Amino acid sequence: MSDTSPLVVILMGSGADRDHCAKIAAVLAKLGVDHVQRIGSAHKTPEHVLAIIEHYESGPRPIVWVTIAGRSNALSAFVDAKVSSPVISCPPLSMPEDVWSSLRMPSDVAPLVVLDPANAGLAAAKIVALYDSELSQRVAAHKAGEAAKVTAADAEIHHDSP
Amino acid sequence: MSDTSPLVVILMGSGADRDHCAKIAAVLAKLGVDHVQRIGSAHKTPEHVLAIIEHYESGPRPIVWVTIAGRSNALSAFVDAKVSSPVISCPPLSMPEDVWSSLRMPSDVAPLVVLDPANAGLAAAKIVALYDSELSQRVAAHKAGEAAKVTAADAEIHHDSP
Amino acid sequence: MSDTSPLVVILMGSGADRDHCAKIAAVLAKLGVDHVQRIGSAHKTPEHVLAIIEHYESGPRPIVWVTIAGRSNALSAFVDAKVSSPVISCPPLSMPEDVWSSLRMPSDVAPLVVLDPANAGLAAAKIVALYDSELSQRVAAHKAGEAAKVTAADAEIHHDSP
Amino acid sequence: MSDTSPLVVILMGSGADRDHCAKIAAVLAKLGVDHVQRIGSAHKTPEHVLAIIEHYESGPRPIVWVTIAGRSNALSAFVDAKVSSPVISCPPLSMPEDVWSSLRMPSDVAPLVVLDPANAGLAAAKIVALYDSELSQRVAAHKAGEAAKVTAADAEIHHDSP
Amino acid sequence: MSDTSPLVVILMGSGADRDHCAKIAAVLAKLGVDHVQRIGSAHKTPEHVLAIIEHYESGPRPIVWVTIAGRSNALSAFVDAKVSSPVISCPPLSMPEDVWSSLRMPSDVAPLVVLDPANAGLAAAKIVALYDSELSQRVAAHKAGEAAKVTAADAEIHHDSP
Amino acid sequence: MSDTSPLVVILMGSGADRDHCAKIAAVLAKLGVDHVQRIGSAHKTPEHVLAIIEHYESGPRPIVWVTIAGRSNALSAFVDAKVSSPVISCPPLSMPEDVWSSLRMPSDVAPLVVLDPANAGLAAAKIVALYDSELSQRVAAHKAGEAAKVTAADAEIHHDSP
Amino acid sequence: MSDTSPLVVILMGSGADRDHCAKIAAVLAKLGVDHVQRIGSAHKTPEHVLAIIEHYESGPRPIVWVTIAGRSNALSAFVDAKVSSPVISCPPLSMPEDVWSSLRMPSDVAPLVVLDPANAGLAAAKIVALYDSELSQRVAAHKAGEAAKVTAADAEIHHDSP
Amino acid sequence: MSDTSPLVVILMGSGADRDHCAKIAAVLAKLGVDHVQRIGSAHKTPEHVLAIIEHYESGPRPIVWVTIAGRSNALSAFVDAKVSSPVISCPPLSMPEDVWSSLRMPSDVAPLVVLDPANAGLAAAKIVALYDSELSQRVAAHKAGEAAKVTAADAEIHHDSP
Repeated sequence: MSDTSPLVVILMGSGADRDHCAKIAAVLAKLGVDHVQRIGSAHKTPEHVLAIIEHYESGPRPIVWVTIAGRSNALSAFVDAKVSSPVISCPPLSMPEDVWSSLRMPSDVAPLVVLDPANAGLAAAKIVALYDSELSQRVAAHKAGEAAKVTAADAEIHHDSP
Repeated sequence: MSDTSPLVVILMGSGADRDHCAKIAAVLAKLGVDHVQRIGSAHKTPEHVLAIIEHYESGPRPIVWVTIAGRSNALSAFVDAKVSSPVISCPPLSMPEDVWSSLRMPSDVAPLVVLDPANAGLAAAKIVALYDSELSQRVAAHKAGEAAKVTAADAEIHHDSP
Repeated sequence: MSDTSPLVVILMGSGADRDHCAKIAAVLAKLGVDHVQRIGSAHKTPEHVLAIIEHYESGPRPIVWVTIAGRSNALSAFVDAKVSSPVISCPPLSMPEDVWSSLRMPSDVAPLVVLDPANAGLAAAKIVALYDSELSQRVAAHKAGEAAKVTAADAEIHHDSP
Repeated sequence: MSDTSPLVVILMGSGADRDHCAKIAAVLAKLGVDHVQRIGSAHKTPEHVLAIIEHYESGPRPIVWVTIAGRSNALSAFVDAKVSSPVISCPPLSMPEDVWSSLRMPSDVAPLVVLDPANAGLAAAKIVALYDSELSQRVAAHKAGEAAKVTAADAEIHHDSP
Repeated sequence: MSDTSPLVVILMGSGADRDHCAKIAAVLAKLGVDHVQRIGSAHKTPEHVLAIIEHYESGPRPIVWVTIAGRSNALSAFVDAKVSSPVISCPPLSMPEDVWSSLRMPSDVAPLVVLDPANAGLAAAKIVALYDSELSQRVAAHKAGEAAKVTAADAEIHHDSP
Repeated sequence: MSDTSPLVVILMGSGADRDHCAKIAAVLAKLGVDHVQRIGSAHKTPEHVLAIIEHYESGPRPIVWVTIAGRSNALSAFVDAKVSSPVISCPPLSMPEDVWSSLRMPSDVAPLVVLDPANAGLAAAKIVALYDSELSQRVAAHKAGEAAKVTAADAEIHHDSP
Repeated sequence: MSDTSPLVVILMGSGADRDHCAKIAAVLAKLGVDHVQRIGSAHKTPEHVLAIIEHYESGPRPIVWVTIAGRSNALSAFVDAKVSSPVISCPPLSMPEDVWSSLRMPSDVAPLVVLDPANAGLAAAKIVALYDSELSQRVAAHKAGEAAKVTAADAEIHHDSP
Repeated sequence: MSDTSPLVVILMGSGADRDHCAKIAAVLAKLGVDHVQRIGSAHKTPEHVLAIIEHYESGPRPIVWVTIAGRSNALSAFVDAKVSSPVISCPPLSMPEDVWSSLRMPSDVAPLVVLDPANAGLAAAKIVALYDSELSQRVAAHKAGEAAKVTAADAEIHHDSP
């Protein structure tokens, strides 16, 4: 019987983006979301990217894409235009101006931009959690933990404060 | 029996954003995605926004949020930090520098940014379509129609070309 | 008998801003202005921030707020929109574009932006000094001291100059 | 018996800024805050500006300054460096880059920047309201009125919403 | 006998770029350089673009590509990565920040950027002229004509000048 | 018998650009394209630059120019305006804003901008390859090698991926 | 007997800059400074510019150059590098980023940048006035007149002010 | 008998700018131009700056001012507005955006901007050289020496070039 559970495909444009992707994968692993990492360049290997897309989109599992490409980000829009699944674009910025290549999309091309890689992982988990109430609770617990750190820090500093 | 179909909640920070939101709603209507429009300001009426969040998040329907706020966009992150559902941030930019208030998020706050309002509607539909194969086919048909316009335009210009 | 002297509340969005806030507090301490430091996130703990606001605003002491939040600064406007007291926004900038999230406010939301933390402390003291002539004199003396350093440096360099 | 009530002095660098200042004055008038408008250029008439400063600072009334200068804003820092009273800087921007001349201050020069002129008027009122509980209530009422407009707009759109 | 003369292929990403391309074609027509206009989107119709590339690159004629795509320019790099022929990228900028998507290329992807469409046409002609001495003379004559306009304008103004 | 093979002339504005030019020359050497390096400043030694231009343009060899000048790049346009041969402008950027001096050209001045020096070498080779099928094959082989590295990296990471 | 009085040479890169130059000339005419207007392009007609430079620099009159070129400003540095006389660069900006081509100079190239054309005329007059006490008095009178307008505007608004 | 030779007054806004000013002074010393260094802040010590201005402007020597102020540069315009002598503004930039405070001047305020401190020294010397033919020759010799370095570097690299 085929697996119909959702899968997050992290697709990076170059092996040089491996550390950036590891931060995305770490959050997904922590939250218990199944994911896989792939490499393909919209510029240098478009047919390879099209094959990766075909491989996952033709299967029975719902897919959330997370695409990673620095400098001029063609990969995210290339994937998004091809699929009906949602695409999160998480470009590693080496200069602020680079963000515009991820944001300035033509009509009907709609990748979802998140800059911080850990946050991109969390956003992917939130999409998957729409139909997975246990994951939704894990996401909520993760967020509650972060909020508790803030109030704990306040309690500590306030106690110290004159 | 309660409705458990997904709902897109378009939440704008001010009534002045109504035209921008109409473009989001038009795409959702065309694709047959159920949606509602609300108004609430993270600055002026945070309790009202918290009540709107509570209203939809406590119900049985899966929610995709689309948040709309110009200038310094606090609303999108305010909603995202509160919910386990995905949040699409679609800020109406009156100057390019404004985009950074939508992108520069703290840890564990992960709104998904799309600039064009029609594209934001499409992105919301793609998220909903993850578990709705009929919607997924409507999205695919919509995209195929747009691609066909490109090749048709090429056929026309090529025919005219010397 | 309750204390009705003014109080400066330095509210930071994260414990990571502690060093930045220490520079604000140092100037207030030097000028003899009573102050307290608190931590609360408009994104992660809005109810906690609302409780902090309620705590100080409902008391008998006039309050000047100094709010500290990096990246997309939602905290300053969140506090300002809630209170009739003045709010000084002192964002720690990690890139220049971030300043716009502190400046581009909607109607009737009016935080007062100062970039340098020591200057933000001085600005808070100047507000408090409006009704405290002794503090006003300490502020004037502090400023006169800084001006004297300039003329002394000129005397030294001019003496050395051919 | 001399008047010791607070006064807001709106000082503009050129008569060309008159419309911008009218928006500041309108808010102060609505909230019942006493104010006066003056013209002086830190570049062309520094002695005249120094005389205006001396005139108001030597009197018995607490002063809040609102300074208005476009392009390279020297006026706001020039006034701020001279006085122990708070100075709100409200530069009319004709290009975004101009804002940096209002923000990048040397040590111990601390004008408070607000971009929108109506908001600058509100901020001045909030400072004056620190020791004027009736004004504080008028400020709170004004803000409550703005918040009510948001919830009313939501009620209207929600009613219309499918 | 097959035609082995060079051909300039103007490839635009959308029919909306037709006016921009007409300015490129006009210069090529004036200088007597054979050219053709095509439409294909790297986002929406990548296979169609690959087919256009295959069509021209597999033929006997040397090709110079001129690629036209606004907003996030993926088309130019997509074509350049695929071909050994030179690719001139002439993006119609609707905001200055968009230029970076045309310039920030990965290793071994090397489109040649020219902003003004008439200049892009001239640049294509200069490449073709490398092995066409008659065209080279027409280019030189065109440039000499432009230079003569400058000295003529000087003669006229100098004569009028006191 | 005179040499009529093409030559790439790398012209730098200052000896300080030597390392930047070495990266251009390395690619040309790898691909077997004949090239020479020269130094001349459009600002300080315009007559010397004009003499270099005359020297190469009057000879029998087709010339592709690659011009290198940092800060305000006058050299590239100065050379381009003078010659009918193509000119690739490869400015070493020390701040992003500098790129505009390479891009904002008057009418009929059309240098071709490539930022990465190795890519500029590749672009020059692609122009030369238009009439050199063996070079064209070396360029294609070089590009195929780069593409193969991407698919190999994918195979490796995919194998490691859970 | 030859004329040894100073002359301001306004050199524009294109006849299209004529209106911009008229504003410079108008101030010089008002202040009684002798001037002439010329046209020459550093890109298209460098020899013509060199001839203009030679013509004025070889004569007995001290020269102040005012150079005008939009987009990428090569003309100002081209002239400055060639002459020992001072060069004022007054670029007509069509986008803010263009200013950097006027400012980012190599070593020993030192054009003096003034953005407003009327101000550039005034700056040229101030240089000439260094050795012309009557002109110096006319400059001072002009400036005093401008200052008087500021104080007059203040008197008027202050009289109207409540 | 009083000294009527020209003097360059280097006026810095803070002792922290001493190293920047040393580079200006070094060029003036090398070219044999008399100069003096002073310190005064337009913000903190405007009366002291006015006294320095009065001291030099009332004397018999022609004055060229070079003003140095980082961040928001008020000093250059403050001095320029006060004097009929030319003012060179040489701001030490710690971020590019700061340059606009030196460039965006009101009407009739016309400081001359040069970014590189050695270039600012050279520009001051060129102004003084207008009426000093010996200095003019030293400036020309200095520039010729720099040009000779470029051609020498070309000779060296060309000799090495294959």
